Amino acid sequence: MPRYKLTLEYDGRPYAGWQRQADQPTVQEALMNAVELFCGQKVDVVGAGRTDANVHATAQVAHIEIDMDTEGFKVMQGINYYLFNPPAKTIIPNEREESLQNKDEISRFARDDKFWPENKIAILDAKKVADDFHARFSAKRRHYLYRIINRRPRLGLEAGRAWHVIEDLDEKLMQEAAKILVGHHDFSSFRDTRCQSKSPEKTLEIFDVKRRGNEIHIQASARSFLHHQVRNMVGTLSLVGKGKWKVSDVKEALDAKDRRAGGPTCPAEGLYLTGVDY
Amino acid sequence: MPRYKLTLEYDGRPYAGWQRQADQPTVQEALMNAVELFCGQKVDVVGAGRTDANVHATAQVAHIEIDMDTEGFKVMQGINYYLFNPPAKTIIPNEREESLQNKDEISRFARDDKFWPENKIAILDAKKVADDFHARFSAKRRHYLYRIINRRPRLGLEAGRAWHVIEDLDEKLMQEAAKILVGHHDFSSFRDTRCQSKSPEKTLEIFDVKRRGNEIHIQASARSFLHHQVRNMVGTLSLVGKGKWKVSDVKEALDAKDRRAGGPTCPAEGLYLTGVDY
Repeated sequence: MPRYKLTLEYDGRPYAGWQRQADQPTVQEALMNAVELFCGQKVDVVGAGRTDANVHATAQVAHIEIDMDTEGFKVMQGINYYLFNPPAKTIIPNEREESLQNKDEISRFARDDKFWPENKIAILDAKKVADDFHARFSAKRRHYLYRIINRRPRLGLEAGRAWHVIEDLDEKLMQEAAKILVGHHDFSSFRDTRCQSKSPEKTLEIFDVKRRGNEIHIQASARSFLHHQVRNMVGTLSLVGKGKWKVSDVKEALDAKDRRAGGPTCPAEGLYLTGVDY
Repeated sequence: MPRYKLTLEYDGRPYAGWQRQADQPTVQEALMNAVELFCGQKVDVVGAGRTDANVHATAQVAHIEIDMDTEGFKVMQGINYYLFNPPAKTIIPNEREESLQNKDEISRFARDDKFWPENKIAILDAKKVADDFHARFSAKRRHYLYRIINRRPRLGLEAGRAWHVIEDLDEKLMQEAAKILVGHHDFSSFRDTRCQSKSPEKTLEIFDVKRRGNEIHIQASARSFLHHQVRNMVGTLSLVGKGKWKVSDVKEALDAKDRRAGGPTCPAEGLYLTGVDY
């Protein structure tokens, strides 16, 4: 069956993250539903990065394999149509019920407005790719942006779209600390205890801190990241920025190879998946 | 009584615009409620610009006069506290009921979560000003930004925060057309029929179109604007950008001094009040 690469954006707030869950709306399931409404097939939507609840994406990548050989543009338009115009209640034809894994899926798929939030997902691009393209395994580099708004007053316009830090952050010290983490290391100190990665070793290619007025933008790029790695590293940098940690403390934390030595996990709402290279 | 100048931001979506209304939540009333909870006085909050429903602000300016002589910082913190931590149900002391204009106000002020949305307003700065400072009448220049996202797919992450235009827009032609409108003119062709301004003549100081990738940013600055003037001018520019109008058609529309000759009103959600000069 033809395989399509999808590039998509979303506001992470209404969803319980990328990955399907039994009892909460997720980005993946919203996409699976729209794909099924578009082409009549219930297929997996494989994402490059399994973003957490409240994490946003400006350019997440996913792939689907559907029994429809057409232009990428039509696939983009078709899936977007059903994302933005969901049926009030979708009746699944009987003949397809059997193909669903269980009855729970059917009841979740039947659209319930109490369950499903207003759509905040848009496919930006779709194109046909070779059968061996895999959104997750073929990815060579993932790019993330972390946005901090560093000011006293709470966030009105940007609430839920950035991390609000009241204490003055010294971005130059944060940048010095960030440089320590760049390279190939054992990142156990910045790895969530639930992380399923076989190895704690990763190569952090870019970790860069820039201030623009009262915003601090932190860019992180690597082939892949450990679970919560970006948020744990940014949480650690924030301690340096506030003057609670010295730059050299970050080196010590890294060398400890122990999650208890690293800084706190910063909030999901400041994190954006901004691109995936293949 | 001491007078304070407030600079504030808001996401316009949850509110029916700036100005108080009998039956809908507004930015002005949310502020009046927070000010009253902070200082115990029901006072008017006078804004520089009465933004429409769904119009955002990064730096709206307002003033209040309260019987409290303190640092601006404390005023900012106090009002923000009550904006972000509203009481579930506010009981108004009996002695102040009489000072309210009517009983309807009391029932509206009593916080009802069905009525009041989650707060999206933040005071960014407060400072004491002279008694003759007036947020609206002392303003020398108002600055607006209009954001267009010019692409095929609908908006996921930026839904409600920009105008989505599918057709390719030629920003160079739009900029040529914008130059025609800069200066002192009778703007009747871009004036809403409900406009209460005495004169249709205004001096448009800046009207500037820039493309950044698939975003088009239009900056508009003037001492004051007619009702819907920015949105009617941007709607007109969009016709030029799409090739439906020639640049010279904008000159003709301006010269007609008739609203029916101008282009359409573009959506509120792309408009941001970005600053007020005094």
